[in-house]
Amino acid sequence: MSEDVSVIVVGSCMTDLVSQAPRLPKAGETIHGHKFFIGFGGKGANQCVQAARMGAKTAMVCKVGKDFFGDNYIQNFKNNAVSTDFVEQTEKAATGAASIIINNTGENAIVIVAGANMLLGEEELRRAQSAITRAKVLICQLEIKPDASLQALRMAKEHHVKTIFNPAPAIADLQSDFYKASDVFCCNESEAELLTGMAVTSVEEASQVSLELLRRGCGSVIVTLGPQGCVVCQSTNVVPKPVPTTLVTAVDTTGAGDSFIGALAYYMAHYSTMPLEEMARRANLVAAVSVQTVGTQTSFPFRKDLPTELF
Amino acid sequence: MSEDVSVIVVGSCMTDLVSQAPRLPKAGETIHGHKFFIGFGGKGANQCVQAARMGAKTAMVCKVGKDFFGDNYIQNFKNNAVSTDFVEQTEKAATGAASIIINNTGENAIVIVAGANMLLGEEELRRAQSAITRAKVLICQLEIKPDASLQALRMAKEHHVKTIFNPAPAIADLQSDFYKASDVFCCNESEAELLTGMAVTSVEEASQVSLELLRRGCGSVIVTLGPQGCVVCQSTNVVPKPVPTTLVTAVDTTGAGDSFIGALAYYMAHYSTMPLEEMARRANLVAAVSVQTVGTQTSFPFRKDLPTELF
Repeated sequence: MSEDVSVIVVGSCMTDLVSQAPRLPKAGETIHGHKFFIGFGGKGANQCVQAARMGAKTAMVCKVGKDFFGDNYIQNFKNNAVSTDFVEQTEKAATGAASIIINNTGENAIVIVAGANMLLGEEELRRAQSAITRAKVLICQLEIKPDASLQALRMAKEHHVKTIFNPAPAIADLQSDFYKASDVFCCNESEAELLTGMAVTSVEEASQVSLELLRRGCGSVIVTLGPQGCVVCQSTNVVPKPVPTTLVTAVDTTGAGDSFIGALAYYMAHYSTMPLEEMARRANLVAAVSVQTVGTQTSFPFRKDLPTELF
Repeated sequence: MSEDVSVIVVGSCMTDLVSQAPRLPKAGETIHGHKFFIGFGGKGANQCVQAARMGAKTAMVCKVGKDFFGDNYIQNFKNNAVSTDFVEQTEKAATGAASIIINNTGENAIVIVAGANMLLGEEELRRAQSAITRAKVLICQLEIKPDASLQALRMAKEHHVKTIFNPAPAIADLQSDFYKASDVFCCNESEAELLTGMAVTSVEEASQVSLELLRRGCGSVIVTLGPQGCVVCQSTNVVPKPVPTTLVTAVDTTGAGDSFIGALAYYMAHYSTMPLEEMARRANLVAAVSVQTVGTQTSFPFRKDLPTELF
């Protein structure tokens, strides 16, 4: 099957354990919530699922525990037609879990225990090598060991596979090699701020920050700006281009960035001659659909739910 | 099987979702924890499991979701030889869940979503009636609808089944009928404080508060005091009796109160002529074993692990 994969993701899987309560508990406190549900999350898996729902042949390279949540996540990949050939289960750690408490105003407090995600390394990448090097696009983030992400990006780049790197969650002292290994370096406002120390509150500032990130060695930079769309900047034509998006009524923006990146990867893999701004414009529209429904992966649209002009 | 049940519990089942992190997250924050695990909790189920491990024939009357956590909890009851004849699964709500975040100093913040527990009512009690009315001891708490607990206590009392009522989590305006329906009213210091408005920081104050609770119509009152043991006070001889316990090095007191009550129920069911102070003294020793190991049900001792003089 590996020859068919167009988008491959080396990244994280997390089980979201979501409690809704009137407020967040303080230390020493027990409070009563009104709803509890389990969701599928993790930036890597989210992006992969969105790419698959767009119609890309996808594979996920990740590690989950040999436990119920791990079994359940593998089933979720299968339900979304994501290849699980490189989803490994380990007895050494539990499937990644994110305990999310959401209060009545939508604010949340999250504790992530990465667990099995941190055990993805060189050996697993070697086993996935033939799929990685034959894919059209590889996506990585920072919810696994940074070394594993960097190795995957380099492996892809050496074989002329296009790389998308999403530096999330951001770290202030990102190794410079990440920029060089990124064909498309895609981050949001707050990640851009943390990486550069520059404020990003407007399209103008996002343009400035994209130039700074580009200078660090990326092929292209996309800085996403929520309802303001994004800014695209390419090394082949160093003029930051604002890409506005349509205004929608957002009910839950969780995972919107992952929806954008998954869709972008789909366009990069399947429309190789399309200008990057056009891909970003379309990916914005896909993400805009996702924010109009509650949930993370549950809100990601399928190809059939999207306007035909996006394809 | 119902004729064999000596201890029956009408109460709650909760899946504990425990994240250990360096500190507790603030609103809007995502932090990284180092360990995640799933445990079996809920005061009702905990007390039932401890009674079963002492050697009592037990049955649990409770409601869980028709979901993985529900299936898993039923298996846990079976593993502990607790009858699941009255454990019902519902599609209408998820199995009760407690999201617990523990920081490095052992402080915790908890959000409980009672879910299926709140759907236990009249109908379910009617189905369990023959088992409830033929048991030796019934235990109730306040993690299900108060009306359901009160109905169960009355059903037992009418049939001369001994009742233990554990008013936890405490509510300030507890209906007076609960006292009258309790052969043994068993609470800890903070619950006693909330119920009476009296401070309980010493054995002397616990004695005073036990007299006040007794006045409200209970057969007997036990106020537990952690390392200070407990105070027992009976309507047949209205002199509060302090029952000290042995000093142990506690590593995790979670569930210690449930271990005490489960053990107490076992003694009440199997040693009907033993003085209540002696039962309380022994139950203290069982709970003292539980605090020396990490976890809730995982720390509850089995009969084989306890000194023979406790039997």
